[in-house]
Amino acid sequence: MTTQDLVLQIRKKKSFLCIGLDTDLEKIPPHLLQTEDPIFEFNKAIIDATNHLCVAYKPNIAFYEAYGIQGWKSLERTIDYLNGKYPEQFTIADAKRGDIGNTSTRYAKAFFEDLNFDSITIAPYMGKDSIEPFLSFENKHTILLALTSNIGAFDFQTKKIDGRELYKEVLQTSKSYQGGQKLMYVVGATKAEYLAEIREIIPENFLLVPGVGAQGGSLQEVCKFGITSDIGLMINSSRGIIYASRGTDFAEAAKKRASDLQGQMQKEMESRDLL
Amino acid sequence: MTTQDLVLQIRKKKSFLCIGLDTDLEKIPPHLLQTEDPIFEFNKAIIDATNHLCVAYKPNIAFYEAYGIQGWKSLERTIDYLNGKYPEQFTIADAKRGDIGNTSTRYAKAFFEDLNFDSITIAPYMGKDSIEPFLSFENKHTILLALTSNIGAFDFQTKKIDGRELYKEVLQTSKSYQGGQKLMYVVGATKAEYLAEIREIIPENFLLVPGVGAQGGSLQEVCKFGITSDIGLMINSSRGIIYASRGTDFAEAAKKRASDLQGQMQKEMESRDLL
Repeated sequence: MTTQDLVLQIRKKKSFLCIGLDTDLEKIPPHLLQTEDPIFEFNKAIIDATNHLCVAYKPNIAFYEAYGIQGWKSLERTIDYLNGKYPEQFTIADAKRGDIGNTSTRYAKAFFEDLNFDSITIAPYMGKDSIEPFLSFENKHTILLALTSNIGAFDFQTKKIDGRELYKEVLQTSKSYQGGQKLMYVVGATKAEYLAEIREIIPENFLLVPGVGAQGGSLQEVCKFGITSDIGLMINSSRGIIYASRGTDFAEAAKKRASDLQGQMQKEMESRDLL
Repeated sequence: MTTQDLVLQIRKKKSFLCIGLDTDLEKIPPHLLQTEDPIFEFNKAIIDATNHLCVAYKPNIAFYEAYGIQGWKSLERTIDYLNGKYPEQFTIADAKRGDIGNTSTRYAKAFFEDLNFDSITIAPYMGKDSIEPFLSFENKHTILLALTSNIGAFDFQTKKIDGRELYKEVLQTSKSYQGGQKLMYVVGATKAEYLAEIREIIPENFLLVPGVGAQGGSLQEVCKFGITSDIGLMINSSRGIIYASRGTDFAEAAKKRASDLQGQMQKEMESRDLL
């Protein structure tokens, strides 16, 4: 999917919501556990109920890997279902990979080609030759961790290098990589006030913003500092949506939560004449 | 496995060699491609030929993930084979994972419990709450990326924070994490002269050193600056050993390369009265 297609979908659906599929057998409704593939059945029901309200789905790969081969099968079925029935959805493999050259290429092929995800999240610590292999795939997107929404973000990401925080150094340096203008970035919503400074460095790039909802960020604040003329934002909610209910009404409850967020997003876009 | 057990094995085998299982269908001997599981057959032959010369095996997880469910099965068979036949081997899942709290716990369970690896490599960018979940597993080991051996290491790792390089900040900060004294660290061999300064911060912790051989580092230099009274080093070689030959003699050729390195390691230990 191209970035233009993503922007078109956002305008069409009046939503820049991404739903995180952090699917956990201990948290899904118990009645699903009797099915052959509970993880897939859960994801399918969530996707069918919410796809008209969001533009992206983000399976967190750890949750699938934790179940070994069975988990990997559930992930394959989920992405195949999305690509087959809802090809307009932007798909994100939240894998946070990062390794050198030939190993990065391996990961890129696994997620971009074999599984056919539109994008993958990547960690920046190993620098240029760990990131560029991902950038060479056409119409595929690399989402680089910049400023995460967890407490550990203050250990290194906000430490200053020559007077500028490490995460800004990551933004600035990665811009110059081969294909770097296409990068998207993970920026946590708990630090919405940082978004103004981030937009000075990367005025147009898409940001994937976790931490609205469960992690306490404010949608209004994120839009105030981060929205662009092409929206430039995907805001993720995982647990707040998918675990809205543990009853047989879980998909309906997820739809309601997603609808609330979509409504707020529409309001933010309308108030700025962005639709 | 405990760190003490690892030290015992090193002294017994007169070797601190780790063999990287970066197994690639395009590089293994063509005659293996006719077998049902070429990746496992290759690994098994390499392990059977070299296990008396090394103390650790390190499958690079990307190479297995790249083959989807089949690759995951080959990885499972490889670690099961190691744990069953050579339980004295220290096993490293070279996964370079890093994510927040509950997601890190997922990865830890997948690699420490389900696959039963002794250790895993982890990226530090997300800080404390992405690393501590791994440190709570008894007799399991977390190997944190500090200074990698690729060119991109200079993008961020060697940038200075308050006059000290980021990788040293990673060493210093991670020492204070809950369980941090048990951490091992990845330190690339191409910068052996940095090891003296690294040992000032972490005098005793084990270092996993890639980059000897294919990446050009010198074993002598690494020992000069990095060795401790309990050795404190595992030196990894991947391609230099496992792809020594593409013929039917590949396992024998790998054994010869491993034996050369073991001999050099024995010499380094003997010259320092460490055996």
